[in-house]
Amino acid sequence: MKKIGIADTTFARVDMAKFAIDAIKKKSDAGIERYTVPGFKDLPVACKKLIEENKCDIVIALGMAGRMPIDKQCAHEASLGLQQAQLATNKHILEVFVHMGEAKTEKEIYNIAKSRAEKHALNALALLKGKAELTKYAGMGRRQGKEDEGPIKTK
Amino acid sequence: MKKIGIADTTFARVDMAKFAIDAIKKKSDAGIERYTVPGFKDLPVACKKLIEENKCDIVIALGMAGRMPIDKQCAHEASLGLQQAQLATNKHILEVFVHMGEAKTEKEIYNIAKSRAEKHALNALALLKGKAELTKYAGMGRRQGKEDEGPIKTK
Amino acid sequence: MKKIGIADTTFARVDMAKFAIDAIKKKSDAGIERYTVPGFKDLPVACKKLIEENKCDIVIALGMAGRMPIDKQCAHEASLGLQQAQLATNKHILEVFVHMGEAKTEKEIYNIAKSRAEKHALNALALLKGKAELTKYAGMGRRQGKEDEGPIKTK
Amino acid sequence: MKKIGIADTTFARVDMAKFAIDAIKKKSDAGIERYTVPGFKDLPVACKKLIEENKCDIVIALGMAGRMPIDKQCAHEASLGLQQAQLATNKHILEVFVHMGEAKTEKEIYNIAKSRAEKHALNALALLKGKAELTKYAGMGRRQGKEDEGPIKTK
Amino acid sequence: MKKIGIADTTFARVDMAKFAIDAIKKKSDAGIERYTVPGFKDLPVACKKLIEENKCDIVIALGMAGRMPIDKQCAHEASLGLQQAQLATNKHILEVFVHMGEAKTEKEIYNIAKSRAEKHALNALALLKGKAELTKYAGMGRRQGKEDEGPIKTK
Repeated sequence: MKKIGIADTTFARVDMAKFAIDAIKKKSDAGIERYTVPGFKDLPVACKKLIEENKCDIVIALGMAGRMPIDKQCAHEASLGLQQAQLATNKHILEVFVHMGEAKTEKEIYNIAKSRAEKHALNALALLKGKAELTKYAGMGRRQGKEDEGPIKTK
Repeated sequence: MKKIGIADTTFARVDMAKFAIDAIKKKSDAGIERYTVPGFKDLPVACKKLIEENKCDIVIALGMAGRMPIDKQCAHEASLGLQQAQLATNKHILEVFVHMGEAKTEKEIYNIAKSRAEKHALNALALLKGKAELTKYAGMGRRQGKEDEGPIKTK
Repeated sequence: MKKIGIADTTFARVDMAKFAIDAIKKKSDAGIERYTVPGFKDLPVACKKLIEENKCDIVIALGMAGRMPIDKQCAHEASLGLQQAQLATNKHILEVFVHMGEAKTEKEIYNIAKSRAEKHALNALALLKGKAELTKYAGMGRRQGKEDEGPIKTK
Repeated sequence: MKKIGIADTTFARVDMAKFAIDAIKKKSDAGIERYTVPGFKDLPVACKKLIEENKCDIVIALGMAGRMPIDKQCAHEASLGLQQAQLATNKHILEVFVHMGEAKTEKEIYNIAKSRAEKHALNALALLKGKAELTKYAGMGRRQGKEDEGPIKTK
Repeated sequence: MKKIGIADTTFARVDMAKFAIDAIKKKSDAGIERYTVPGFKDLPVACKKLIEENKCDIVIALGMAGRMPIDKQCAHEASLGLQQAQLATNKHILEVFVHMGEAKTEKEIYNIAKSRAEKHALNALALLKGKAELTKYAGMGRRQGKEDEGPIKTK
């Protein structure tokens, strides 16, 4: 049985892990391991531990970033850590970050967070099936948390 | 017995380590190892040595950054080093940095530094208990050094 | 027989992999392994897996970035991951990224994506032949996705 | 006997190594190994070689950066390399960089370079004594190249 | 016999490798291995392969960057890759990058490229001789591609 890691934070203002876990459970009986840390800079090592110590096959890293420049810098540092954690383990860690500046109202942020967590949960399930599972959607302009943009039409 | 590393600097203008150590001692009999370095760029290797040479199970890295752009760049470099140190050791290093630009008066900076050091000391104790210890606060908009923002209300 | 990895995304709005694969097949009977991931931040580990698990000798990483500052930051993170993946494997990974801001119309973006994918497919074939294969073009101001600029004339 | 590495550049406009070496010799009979490279981007590998090939216990990396944005970017790259070199060796490398934009006159730059090199030489000696040697100065707002700012007064 | 690696690109608009090779041949009978790649982001792994697979003792990495912000970002990514390649191999890789924005005319760019390639070729020969070979020029404000600035005069 495959195992999916869910890493999330107490900093986030939406319980994104709940949405991801619900989406996984509807479609799969994969095992789930959850790891909650204070902020998104604590996610990379948590994800690496989920893979190496809890034997997860893939991890979903859920975080929320504030509106200030320093928040963007912190998200950047966390993202680079997630890149390194993936390369050290040869496992995917899907970064599901929501930036408070992506929308004007809190309600919209909530909806983006929900949609992005759910859609990336499905991406995780697809990646677990194999490297060609998503090829039918290649170049199709898919988005998570927003409407798909679709492929560029040339005719 | 668990061991907590405390890495701090002579550059900082507040003895943040004192607050972290006091907070730990009130709640736990964990061992404490302290390592003081000149500036926050010296913290990553100090934290890694606390873990590898002094056998700490988790580390709290305390630093203070100035107001200038170069200070932000230096903090960024230190943060990336802390990410790498965590991934190399599979241990958490809680980054507790205070930026002089976060507040207008020195008194406010002092209060932020105290609160942030104390709250992250408690986060360190929680993380030592296991990966689900903080899950009850997931998505709750917790902050350190400031008031919690709380979860987004959708009703 | 040499094996070429093709890593692409569902985020992109053009099926760049198709152009790269067609260009390779016209000139070579190299084996091809394709790996499709959600977005370009998922490319570095996919490329590393193509090299280490699927035994590819070189990889072409195809991605498309949006117009916003956050998109540039994400592309930067993916690029740094691709650098690390190459250094970890001692294999080339040709980064073929198209930025939506490179052109004004979608048609132009489509053409840039096609040209860049095709030309870098030929670069991959050249690099597979050896380290001096491209030396005849050294300093010649070659471009992919745009007209060559040519060497600086000094007379 | 402890050995201190001194890495410096031909790009710098002040012989900072001389100041560091004089300061060390006044206080200690530690061995000194000096390595001179063209610019500060060449420092990280030189420092790592001083540690790994010349068996230095700590290194002082001395460099000077120009006034242009590209100079800041280069200093950033060198700093990140120094972080990695420290984490790879578990040894401190004290970064002693002077930015030409820190002062208005060349004389002031000279004085900053001298003070910073001397003070970090003393920091290196302190770090060689052990991780608690600097703890008496923790949070005291010490500076190198400038006046100490001192701790924030709360009364 | 020592071996010097020369890594260059088809993107550059000047055949910088020719200048570096000519400068080396005038002063030394070191072996030379040349590796040409499409762009400067392909240089780090090429340099690492020159060191590890072709047994070069030092490498000169020659590249040219365009005028746009994205070009600066790409040069930054390549530079960070070169830092990592040096730290992974404990060998110097001299970064010889020319930015199209450094001068107003193409002729000037050409001259900068020629001077910088030649002077760094001589730096490579010096570094091969040992870590103290350049010490006589430490702090002397040497430049490559431009006039030396010289040391700061204090009298």
